[in-house]
Amino acid sequence: MNTITLDVSSRQKTELIDITPEVQQRVAGAGFDNGICMVYVPHTTAAVTINESADPAVARDIIMVLNQIVPWKAGYRHMEGNSPAHVKAGLVGESVHVAVNSGDLQLGTWQGIFFCEFDGPRSRRVRLHLING
Amino acid sequence: MNTITLDVSSRQKTELIDITPEVQQRVAGAGFDNGICMVYVPHTTAAVTINESADPAVARDIIMVLNQIVPWKAGYRHMEGNSPAHVKAGLVGESVHVAVNSGDLQLGTWQGIFFCEFDGPRSRRVRLHLING
Amino acid sequence: MNTITLDVSSRQKTELIDITPEVQQRVAGAGFDNGICMVYVPHTTAAVTINESADPAVARDIIMVLNQIVPWKAGYRHMEGNSPAHVKAGLVGESVHVAVNSGDLQLGTWQGIFFCEFDGPRSRRVRLHLING
Repeated sequence: MNTITLDVSSRQKTELIDITPEVQQRVAGAGFDNGICMVYVPHTTAAVTINESADPAVARDIIMVLNQIVPWKAGYRHMEGNSPAHVKAGLVGESVHVAVNSGDLQLGTWQGIFFCEFDGPRSRRVRLHLING
Repeated sequence: MNTITLDVSSRQKTELIDITPEVQQRVAGAGFDNGICMVYVPHTTAAVTINESADPAVARDIIMVLNQIVPWKAGYRHMEGNSPAHVKAGLVGESVHVAVNSGDLQLGTWQGIFFCEFDGPRSRRVRLHLING
Repeated sequence: MNTITLDVSSRQKTELIDITPEVQQRVAGAGFDNGICMVYVPHTTAAVTINESADPAVARDIIMVLNQIVPWKAGYRHMEGNSPAHVKAGLVGESVHVAVNSGDLQLGTWQGIFFCEFDGPRSRRVRLHLING
């Protein structure tokens, strides 16, 4: 199984970053033809999700609701002050899986892959595991 | 990797549709014996989840709580008016993965696979990717 | 595809149990060298997630927020009284996927795998599906 590591730099505390072009480029560059591209985030205050990439307002609306659901202050016991980021990461999830056919990610028309920063800004990593079908 | 596309028609704005029988039928019909059946929704206002299929009240309770968590009106910036559907899709997720053994989905006793419509009614598609183990 | 079943005993109503050491031990014990370890929960009132394992306060904070998001009483229609557990299971998800390299789970530095009990205490099962890469 081929594994590729991407570097992602976030610039804000909470931010969704569209990584679709780089994922597509790396999958094609690896000569991976058919199978599953698993996108994995090895952090506990960040996540990855698939949603609409055409209108950036969708990503902002997702962040807005997540901030409403998971309050910044709520009697958290974890002393580092980033418990909300851990909870958001748990709700969104640490991996997505996209089929690849003839080297192309088989995303839906409006779908893009977003790295979700919940405790930035930071230098982060994303791993692509290319699983033969 | 074999990929099968299902057509799903939703009839309500928000609706969980049990697609387990059709998924099982298509997996068996494809002669897929052992591995993983990945169920993938290529939409951004719909999702897929696994939960109890015996009592339809469970699906209705999931919808009720999702509607409470993600308000219909909340200063959303996405102008198409379906931001709540995008957020719900992000929380629930676009794929589930079920093992297949001797052609049978290895679901737990009470588990079923539900297509989640959050912006219906619409004609939708679900993709099954059959990954050899 | 090799499948391994773990037994997990929960002791509380709602509880996150770090199963990383047992998952690692079973993967290595099976002689599984490279690929994906899919961790699957065949229940509908339990789930599995990846989050910080170093400080147990993180797991407690996740439970606290989930209990705030999904109220214990809310006009649920499912008559068994455990609808909140079904909803939480739907939000968190029934599977996680971790790469394995030379027999080692490729988790991030702070990541651990947690079985999530939402309707305990109970005897539960977790399945590991070892998918060759």
